[in-house]
Amino acid sequence: MSDLIEKLNWRYAAKRMNGESVPEEKLNTILEAIKLSPSSAGLQPYNVIVISDKELKEKIFNTAAPQPQIKESSHLLVFAAWEKITAKQIDDFINLIATTRDVTLESLAQYQQSISSNILSRSEDVNFNWAARQAYIGLGHALVAAATENVDATPMEGFNAGKLDEILGLKEKGLRSVVIVTLGYRDQENDGLAKAKKVRRSSEEFFISI
Amino acid sequence: MSDLIEKLNWRYAAKRMNGESVPEEKLNTILEAIKLSPSSAGLQPYNVIVISDKELKEKIFNTAAPQPQIKESSHLLVFAAWEKITAKQIDDFINLIATTRDVTLESLAQYQQSISSNILSRSEDVNFNWAARQAYIGLGHALVAAATENVDATPMEGFNAGKLDEILGLKEKGLRSVVIVTLGYRDQENDGLAKAKKVRRSSEEFFISI
Repeated sequence: MSDLIEKLNWRYAAKRMNGESVPEEKLNTILEAIKLSPSSAGLQPYNVIVISDKELKEKIFNTAAPQPQIKESSHLLVFAAWEKITAKQIDDFINLIATTRDVTLESLAQYQQSISSNILSRSEDVNFNWAARQAYIGLGHALVAAATENVDATPMEGFNAGKLDEILGLKEKGLRSVVIVTLGYRDQENDGLAKAKKVRRSSEEFFISI
Repeated sequence: MSDLIEKLNWRYAAKRMNGESVPEEKLNTILEAIKLSPSSAGLQPYNVIVISDKELKEKIFNTAAPQPQIKESSHLLVFAAWEKITAKQIDDFINLIATTRDVTLESLAQYQQSISSNILSRSEDVNFNWAARQAYIGLGHALVAAATENVDATPMEGFNAGKLDEILGLKEKGLRSVVIVTLGYRDQENDGLAKAKKVRRSSEEFFISI
């Protein structure tokens, strides 16, 4: 069994954490893995909010996400998708390609035209759902990276997104939270699921080989 | 820099592949990483179709996804979300938990009630989008696992999902393709992007630290 698979078998969604801090180096590896995750057209249509402030986590626990891990975590990551995709954001992205790769804007004009006509012709709702999906690729990267660093990570969709957006002032930034992850360390004594067997459909049921 | 980050910097979405086969052991690691990816409530509301047949890849290239990697890949993975979520699927899942963890169905009744009332009260469209997001967590796992195995992986949304579903008979299985990935090896000579610098927003722009 590969090291990676061993780590992925070790990981689970801890329901209780012990309050221990995740060292900065490990946190940075997890964040870098998210940043390096690919996205459709390369646009990265989301941001990630990184929260370690105790009082803020308490506030989020009290009003938006009542799971004990929120308070017991070292860090809370909020994946927030862009509410709309604008021509300005696509311009910025094209400029970033030009700068990063040292190529002219002219050489990117066709690419810009192609992604603009594709993305800007879709409804806001379609684009938001599309942006959210890209954030979930980042989420997948975060979970694997955390496991390889022996850091527990619990992804959660069961929270009040409206309230959370309000607390974090996300609406003003054109963002909407779609999924959150607590990072920290499992509290083996108080988490009834810490030793539970992982439940997955068999490969025969999950994969269809052709 | 951690090994993982090194691998993630090595990876990119190869636009051309060289036709070389991915060894079975590496393929299995990638598939296992997908299977181990978490999903909301643990339901895994999607399947992954694994295609290596040359003629079938050719057919998909000709009618649903005209990217050269489709033909040049070793394997094509199709992530297909459940079109609807049914009470039967939730029952099967609860039974799987009972069998895997050797616990009674009675002890799971409350959990079943809670996820049923949550999921089954939502519209088909909301549930399909939710299922697709779970598949994207699996996609994130696939991409990291491929990179750690030095296998190239190119995720693609730009394909004709209706046609692909038709070719693979997915509708009859209650599935709809949401994203595909080619696995194989980069063709450095013919891929203009093989040596291009990775384009990502800076950490200061991508992360919001609080």
